Amino acid sequence: MKIIHTADWHLGRILNGKQLLDDQKYVLTKFINHMEKEQPDVIVIAGDLYDTSYPSKETMSLLENTIAELNIILQIPVIMISGNHDGKERLNYGSSWFEHNHLFIRTKLKDIHKPIEINGVQFFALPFATISEVQHFFEDKEINTHQQALNRCIEYMSQNIDENKVSILIGHLTIKGGKTSDSERPLTIGTVESVERQSFDQFEYVMLGHLHHPFSVNEKNIKYSGSLLQYSFSEVNQAKGYRIVNIDEVYHVEDTFKSIEPLRELEVIEGDYDDVIEERVSVKNKDNYFHFKLTNMSHINDPMMKLKQIYPNTLALTNNTFEHIEEFNNVEIKKQDDQSIIKSFYESMTNEEISENQSNKIAEILNNIMRKEV
Amino acid sequence: MKIIHTADWHLGRILNGKQLLDDQKYVLTKFINHMEKEQPDVIVIAGDLYDTSYPSKETMSLLENTIAELNIILQIPVIMISGNHDGKERLNYGSSWFEHNHLFIRTKLKDIHKPIEINGVQFFALPFATISEVQHFFEDKEINTHQQALNRCIEYMSQNIDENKVSILIGHLTIKGGKTSDSERPLTIGTVESVERQSFDQFEYVMLGHLHHPFSVNEKNIKYSGSLLQYSFSEVNQAKGYRIVNIDEVYHVEDTFKSIEPLRELEVIEGDYDDVIEERVSVKNKDNYFHFKLTNMSHINDPMMKLKQIYPNTLALTNNTFEHIEEFNNVEIKKQDDQSIIKSFYESMTNEEISENQSNKIAEILNNIMRKEV
Repeated sequence: MKIIHTADWHLGRILNGKQLLDDQKYVLTKFINHMEKEQPDVIVIAGDLYDTSYPSKETMSLLENTIAELNIILQIPVIMISGNHDGKERLNYGSSWFEHNHLFIRTKLKDIHKPIEINGVQFFALPFATISEVQHFFEDKEINTHQQALNRCIEYMSQNIDENKVSILIGHLTIKGGKTSDSERPLTIGTVESVERQSFDQFEYVMLGHLHHPFSVNEKNIKYSGSLLQYSFSEVNQAKGYRIVNIDEVYHVEDTFKSIEPLRELEVIEGDYDDVIEERVSVKNKDNYFHFKLTNMSHINDPMMKLKQIYPNTLALTNNTFEHIEEFNNVEIKKQDDQSIIKSFYESMTNEEISENQSNKIAEILNNIMRKEV
Repeated sequence: MKIIHTADWHLGRILNGKQLLDDQKYVLTKFINHMEKEQPDVIVIAGDLYDTSYPSKETMSLLENTIAELNIILQIPVIMISGNHDGKERLNYGSSWFEHNHLFIRTKLKDIHKPIEINGVQFFALPFATISEVQHFFEDKEINTHQQALNRCIEYMSQNIDENKVSILIGHLTIKGGKTSDSERPLTIGTVESVERQSFDQFEYVMLGHLHHPFSVNEKNIKYSGSLLQYSFSEVNQAKGYRIVNIDEVYHVEDTFKSIEPLRELEVIEGDYDDVIEERVSVKNKDNYFHFKLTNMSHINDPMMKLKQIYPNTLALTNNTFEHIEEFNNVEIKKQDDQSIIKSFYESMTNEEISENQSNKIAEILNNIMRKEV
C-alpha cells in the first residue's frame, strides 16, 4: 500500500504583492508527473488547498485541473480535508458527485467518525474546525481549547476504529513543539493552539497539514508533509515536496520525503548594496525571489528599481545600514502577532495597560475577521 | 420521452435591495417535488443559473443542493448551459466528474458540435457567447453580428445532426420580436442582439433561455421557458414555471407550460396614499413584494416606513401626484438603456451631438464592464 501525503498548497497565494500562480502551476505539473511514476494507491491532501476562502476563477481552475489529472486521468483516489484557509462550502462544491470517482472531500464535522477505507486501510479525515464549531457540533460548552476539541473528535471516531486494520488520521492542526514558519496564519487568536502528541495514540500513523516545514516534528508516526512551495522568507533553503508512506503486509509503516524543484526559490541576501548591484555576491539563480538586506544604500535613488533590473523578482528590500533603528521600528513589529501590535498601540496611546476583558474582546474580533467568508 | 425545460433561475438575484434567495429556495423545493412526480427523462436548464459571475457561497450551495436532489437522489439526467449572467469557469467547476452521473454542463464553444444523446434524442447545447468569443473560436473576423455568430455555430453543429433522430437546440439568446422584460440584461450593447426564427430550421425543437416571459414567442417549436420567478415589476401577473415537452414514437413534439406558485408575487398598486395605508385597496397578499405608485402623499413624513408597517415587503414607491414631472425626471430615465443615458448626459452637458466614434467607444466600454468577471 503506497500513500502520498501532501498539504498546504495555498493556491492563489500572494507573496509581497507577487501572485505565485505560475510557480504553483509549474510545481503541480511536476507533482502530476511524479504521481504518474509513483502510481500510489491514494493521495492525501491535508488542508489549505486554497490560500483564501474566496479564490479567483484562475485559482479554482488550477485546483480543478490538477485534481482532474490525478483522479480522472490517472485514476488515483484522492482524499482531501479543508484547512484554516479554505472556505468549506467552496472546497466542498460538487463533492457528492466526486465520491463516485473516489475523490473524497471532507470539510464538515458530521462525517469525521466515518472512515474512508482504501485497500483495507482506514482513513479518518478531520477537517480544520474552530473551537466554537466543535462546541456547536457536540453541543458541549465545556470544549474551550484546541486540545479538548481534538480529544472530543477522536473520541467520536474511536467507535469506528477497527483494531484489526491500519488506521490513519488526517488533520490540519499544530503539534506542540512543532517548528513554525512566518507563512502560517494562526488557527485561533488568544488561545493555545497546539495539541499533545499523545492525543493520537489510537492511530498507526498521522498525516498533518498546517505547519509548512516538512520536518516540523520529529516523530516516527506523526508527520507534516510541509507546504507545496516556500511561502515566506523564513522558509529559505527549506526543501518542499511530498511524503511517500508505505505500509507492508505486516502493517509496518515507513515514510520517505521527496522534494520537487520549484520554478523559483526564495533567497535572502545580506551584504553591501554595491556588491549586489555589481554582482559580486553569489546567488543561486538571478530569477529567484529575493529579500535583500543591504548596507550603504542610503544615497541611492530608488534602489528597488535598480535591483530589479538585475534581479527581476526582487520582492523585499531592507536597509541594513541603521540596523538597530530599523529593528526597533519595523522588524520587531513585523515579527509580532496582531494582538500584540494592538496591545502596544493601545498602551503607547493611553499610557494604560490593556485589561483582560479588552484583550478577550480583541481576540474575539480578530477571530471573527479571520474566519469570515464572503 | 419527457423533457423538462427551464431557464433563467438567476440565483442570488437582488431586487431593489432585497435578496431573493429565500424565494428561490422555496420555489426550487417545489420544483424538485414536481420533478419527483413528473419523472422526466431529462431536465434542460437553458442558462442564467446564477445572477452574477461571482455568486456567494449560499447561492452556490442552493444550486449544488438543488441539482444534487435532481441528479443524484432522483437520478434524472440534467443538461445545462451558461447564460450571459453566468461565470463560465465557476458554473463549469467539477463538470468532468459530473458527466459520469449524467449531469452535463456546457459553457464553452469547443463542445457545441457534439450532441448529448439521451433516449435517441440529440441535444445540441449552445452556451451564451459574445460575438468576439465566436470570432475568436472560429478565427473569423467576418463574424460581426449575433445572427452571423449563430449561423456559424449551427453550421458547425450540422455535420453531426442525424436526420433519423429528433434534434433539439438549447440556447440562450433573443429571438426577433420576442417579448422582453426589464429584468433581462442586454446581451451586447450597440449591436442588434436578436436573431431570426428561420435560423433554427434544422432542429425539431428549440429550448431557449434569456427572455423572462414564458410566452415571449409564439412558435410551435421554439419556446422560452421563462424565468423561475418574477424578477422585475414589468413581470407582474406573469405566470412562472417550466415546460413539459413530450416526444412520441413518431417523433411528434408537444409541449405544455406548468406554473409554480411562488412564496411571494410582485404587485404594482396605483392609488391614493390614504386608501392604501387604511387598507381600502385590494391586494393579493400583504406579504407580496410591492411597488406603490401613490398620490396625495407629499405631506407624509417617511411614507415608505409607514407602508412597510402594513406591507412589510414594499420594495418601491413612486410619488404619482406630480405625474408629469416625475415621468420626465425619473421614470423615463429608468426605462432608457445605459448608452442612451450617457448620450443624453453628454448632449445636455456639451450641447453637441455625440459622434459615431464616441458612441462605439462607449458601447465597447459598457460591453467590457458587462462581461468582466472577477
